[in-house]
Amino acid sequence: MEKRGAEVSNKQIILRDYVTGFPKESDMLLSSPKVSLKVPRGSSAVLVKNLYLSCDPYMRIRMQKLDPPGYFDSYVPGSPLSGFAVAKVIDSSHEDFKEGDVVWGITTWEEFSLVTEPETLFKIKYTDLPLSYYTGVLGMPGLTAYAGFYEICSPKKGEYVFVSAASGAVGHLVGQFAKLKGCYVVGSAGSNEKVELLKNKFGFDGAFNYREEPDLDAALKRYFPQGIDIYFENVGGATLDAVLLNMRVHGRIAVCGMISQYNLDKPQGVHNLANLVFKRIRMEGFLVFDYYNKNIHRTFEEEVREYLKEGKIEYVEDTAYGLESAPAALVGLFTGRNVGKQVVALEHQ
Amino acid sequence: MEKRGAEVSNKQIILRDYVTGFPKESDMLLSSPKVSLKVPRGSSAVLVKNLYLSCDPYMRIRMQKLDPPGYFDSYVPGSPLSGFAVAKVIDSSHEDFKEGDVVWGITTWEEFSLVTEPETLFKIKYTDLPLSYYTGVLGMPGLTAYAGFYEICSPKKGEYVFVSAASGAVGHLVGQFAKLKGCYVVGSAGSNEKVELLKNKFGFDGAFNYREEPDLDAALKRYFPQGIDIYFENVGGATLDAVLLNMRVHGRIAVCGMISQYNLDKPQGVHNLANLVFKRIRMEGFLVFDYYNKNIHRTFEEEVREYLKEGKIEYVEDTAYGLESAPAALVGLFTGRNVGKQVVALEHQ
Repeated sequence: MEKRGAEVSNKQIILRDYVTGFPKESDMLLSSPKVSLKVPRGSSAVLVKNLYLSCDPYMRIRMQKLDPPGYFDSYVPGSPLSGFAVAKVIDSSHEDFKEGDVVWGITTWEEFSLVTEPETLFKIKYTDLPLSYYTGVLGMPGLTAYAGFYEICSPKKGEYVFVSAASGAVGHLVGQFAKLKGCYVVGSAGSNEKVELLKNKFGFDGAFNYREEPDLDAALKRYFPQGIDIYFENVGGATLDAVLLNMRVHGRIAVCGMISQYNLDKPQGVHNLANLVFKRIRMEGFLVFDYYNKNIHRTFEEEVREYLKEGKIEYVEDTAYGLESAPAALVGLFTGRNVGKQVVALEHQ
Repeated sequence: MEKRGAEVSNKQIILRDYVTGFPKESDMLLSSPKVSLKVPRGSSAVLVKNLYLSCDPYMRIRMQKLDPPGYFDSYVPGSPLSGFAVAKVIDSSHEDFKEGDVVWGITTWEEFSLVTEPETLFKIKYTDLPLSYYTGVLGMPGLTAYAGFYEICSPKKGEYVFVSAASGAVGHLVGQFAKLKGCYVVGSAGSNEKVELLKNKFGFDGAFNYREEPDLDAALKRYFPQGIDIYFENVGGATLDAVLLNMRVHGRIAVCGMISQYNLDKPQGVHNLANLVFKRIRMEGFLVFDYYNKNIHRTFEEEVREYLKEGKIEYVEDTAYGLESAPAALVGLFTGRNVGKQVVALEHQ
């Protein structure tokens, strides 16, 4: 138990400078400033101890200089990264939070974080499932998969669903939601180990290693001779181009992310968009933030908690231990090193 | 009045061979086979005399070898083209049509056409407006503009609307629908004459000549400092890429066509699709055929007829005379020679 008011050292992961190309561990460094374990007087902040940090693809976008700033703000060189985390409240000046509460939301990549806008934190009500799940299946990536699949894809039983980056934090849940809905589901991933996992653990009807497919169009035609009704887009670029050739009439593409493009100076060109017209395809981008605290957020949490407890959804975490391991864990996302949700555990529970 | 049963010569426009690149007049030739002015016994066909032929961008797609065939069928080299037309029934074995009826729908590029599936024809009930309007504002392009704008764009009063190919058959109607809805509307076109027309005749709030804008992104930022809510896409390629940079959050892109891409061996790459995610954009392709004979088709015809009679919508036709002029009229679409709807009148009314 941390002593409230004590001054302790607070390990942090600092961004050295803006990143171009693939991020490297050396783009980040460890620092250990002092922090007072007490919320400053007169504020309405909350001081938390971070338990689990979440590594998410969108963080790469924040590591570069965004000019003009768009939806995301750039991280500030010389300052610590921030991201989703599960954390425990140590001290609070905010009426909605008290010492001992467990929360998830955006904090800083450090041991102790002062959250000055605690309205952005979600209180965790149930602790019967692992707390780390709130960085994944029960948190932002889970709601992303749920809202993206049910709201944007408008799925119907028996439809043909393709998921890219299918073994990732979002993709493997989308595939399982689609199976629960009665769809035929195929996923692509970047290693044979992941392909096995998709087929044998997550119940995908098919899966392939895109690195071993010189012709993605041909691969899709092999798995979808009848075409694709729903594409859950996580990667962009060449995969999207091949998918456009294989979509069915009135198909839907939920654009969740384009991880293959984030490290490129200039994104790849997509050439087959005219298929949107001929096949009357709806292609829609979405961000999970739009679904926070809506009805769907509550339905999601209830439903997915039940699925997990009944074993209807399998969930896989790839856990790194200790703040020192966080840079390597984050960098690994972009080479596809992680299998399942990449988490950094700061303390054993 | 044609004598029923007579054998007459029937001028036709024949496609010589599949087209690559920009179509040329010499890709087509005139032929004059004989035709009997009588529906063959035992059929349920309708024989029509074509009055107006419609030149439409999608015809370029049918001039190439489509392999595999997609939504459109290729025209057959050595056979006449087909397309939308307004025509008069000369002889009918179908119970829904009788001699003297005026219709619009798909016929062949010739003087007299035997329509073997007359269910595809629409009977023209009102003849108080020019019949040629059923190749445009009251026909396929009109319903395209109406369904695309009202159904796909989900417009709201006060929103910022951009239309490309804005002086074309569809574009200039979309702009006027948007003005009637209370939107701010800017269009792009390929000549200063068209830009003047957009501003002075069609009531666009702004218009620019894309050929004189070396930086389309900068042009859009000039006309839409606050961004674009709705983009009505007729051209594709570089324009779409610039638009993606300038869309607002929760924007909508109705993909009606991509005329700039139809003559290219390999379509241009579109690089800025990641904006679909960050800005939660819905981009949706559509085809007018899906709206035929639906409620919206009836609403469209009633509403637009009223608008035309009240002068609330301006409509411009570019008319070529005689079947011999049809190849040049069609080819002119792809160099932007036409101003407004390109029609070929086969006979003075």
